[in-house]
Amino acid sequence: MLYLIGLGLSHETDITVRGLETIKKCSRVYLEAYTSILMTASKEDLEKFYGKEVILADREMVESKSDEILHNGQTEDIAFLVVGDVFGATTHTDLVIRARELGIKVESIHNASVMNAVGACGLQLYNFGQAVSIVFFTENWRPDSFYAKIEENRKIGLHTLLLLDIKVKEPNFKEMMRGRIVYEPPRYMSVSTCCEQLLEVEEKRGEKAYTPNTPCVAVSRLGSPSQSFKAATLKELAEYDAGEPLHSVVMLGRQVHDLELEYLLEFADDKEAFKKAVRADQEYFKPPPPPPVEEEEFSD
Amino acid sequence: MLYLIGLGLSHETDITVRGLETIKKCSRVYLEAYTSILMTASKEDLEKFYGKEVILADREMVESKSDEILHNGQTEDIAFLVVGDVFGATTHTDLVIRARELGIKVESIHNASVMNAVGACGLQLYNFGQAVSIVFFTENWRPDSFYAKIEENRKIGLHTLLLLDIKVKEPNFKEMMRGRIVYEPPRYMSVSTCCEQLLEVEEKRGEKAYTPNTPCVAVSRLGSPSQSFKAATLKELAEYDAGEPLHSVVMLGRQVHDLELEYLLEFADDKEAFKKAVRADQEYFKPPPPPPVEEEEFSD
Repeated sequence: MLYLIGLGLSHETDITVRGLETIKKCSRVYLEAYTSILMTASKEDLEKFYGKEVILADREMVESKSDEILHNGQTEDIAFLVVGDVFGATTHTDLVIRARELGIKVESIHNASVMNAVGACGLQLYNFGQAVSIVFFTENWRPDSFYAKIEENRKIGLHTLLLLDIKVKEPNFKEMMRGRIVYEPPRYMSVSTCCEQLLEVEEKRGEKAYTPNTPCVAVSRLGSPSQSFKAATLKELAEYDAGEPLHSVVMLGRQVHDLELEYLLEFADDKEAFKKAVRADQEYFKPPPPPPVEEEEFSD
Repeated sequence: MLYLIGLGLSHETDITVRGLETIKKCSRVYLEAYTSILMTASKEDLEKFYGKEVILADREMVESKSDEILHNGQTEDIAFLVVGDVFGATTHTDLVIRARELGIKVESIHNASVMNAVGACGLQLYNFGQAVSIVFFTENWRPDSFYAKIEENRKIGLHTLLLLDIKVKEPNFKEMMRGRIVYEPPRYMSVSTCCEQLLEVEEKRGEKAYTPNTPCVAVSRLGSPSQSFKAATLKELAEYDAGEPLHSVVMLGRQVHDLELEYLLEFADDKEAFKKAVRADQEYFKPPPPPPVEEEEFSD
């Protein structure tokens, strides 16, 4: 059996009781270590907590050597640990499909991920549209496909969760050309870098999918003891120091309910200014007034 | 301190280790028992597992008597348990705002919810738009505001998670008029009832936000040992018996990646027919062909 086990967001104790019990009976335990990191626990902390060796699985192993991970899975129990929940990344879907082909049963043990825990900022999950990924811009590669997706969400009034790039175990290209494999230190995109990139793309495209004054929420170290939120405009957050990683950003849509706003104000430095920014932003993508309601029509 | 603790989806052991440790040190433990249920554990199972009394908190208690829940929270530790994750329902946001007013600190211990665990069906979470609630139709109340939201999602190619109504501790109105409080037995909306209601609304409105042939996924008992998925068209699922509750439904959008489809086919009775339905449905809301790409433009 292959067990896919979500680890949650931060502590080694964020694993579920069922997840922990399952690890204890597995003959091999892999930790997927390239799409996210557990914020307050190292590999050694996990090994101590589980009483088991943990094998780090990098991208190459998961994508090219999945048969090694799945070896003997027809008769042995294997744990594949994923930070957050199990199905955050497409590579895990791939692994399940490969297991099926080999006749290996698969069970998932779910946990929190940023996709649902972000509700802690006070914005309602059902007011979110599609989530988008923001990758580090390089000199020659400044992908902006996120722009159209944010616009799609904002046109229908929805909030957007921006998932920020992390680079773990990236090879150094110069060294690689010399035939040596040297890894770069890990990099985690900050709130300010994300917001700078967003501002750059808006400046270039100028279609006002959002503006420098669009209200956003900086989400720092979600689920960890030092979790914090900051509600401010996009341009303010481009200069905001959100501290240690991991970070995410939420860009608000027009549909901000009073309860959501009341909750967010707690995280604003200048409550009046933030409220004003929210009201002003609601003028974008305003729908036409609704047609007169027919008598026999019902609506919740 | 008020601890909001997610219980996950099914087993008493789906709670996190940190959640369980926290419960053990709290002086009072409330279980929110009206927006969802834990599928394979009763209140008594939880009490045995926690070694603590668990107080059921119905809607009335949470919405009108929150000060009772929060009593002495400035000095005592209080646990408020929520099935799934913590911020699934607006009422919990309310409780946090009230706690803040009373000067009570609040900490959340997150867990899986249907909002992220639904990724287990093979559809990628970042291809989902806004989630919608489907409530039981009554003779005089057949709310269809979900229709416009599904249409908004499908217009931009996104999948929609449909959260199905549950009715727990609903008073019987006839008895109430006689001055007696008698509660109805709990009701959980089934996949087939949901799909019938969707078909009725499409028939009435006829705007083709979706059709009887739109591909969907029935999600049964997500996260429980008897979890199952069925991939079929909307009209097929209107006649599908998804078994014991809880159920959800995902309606597909046009953006179905090959990997998503490959994963889903495992859950289709007639794989060729389902694939054909997906291809046919992709003709709805097809975007115009993209403009020619300028040389200096980059895109991921």
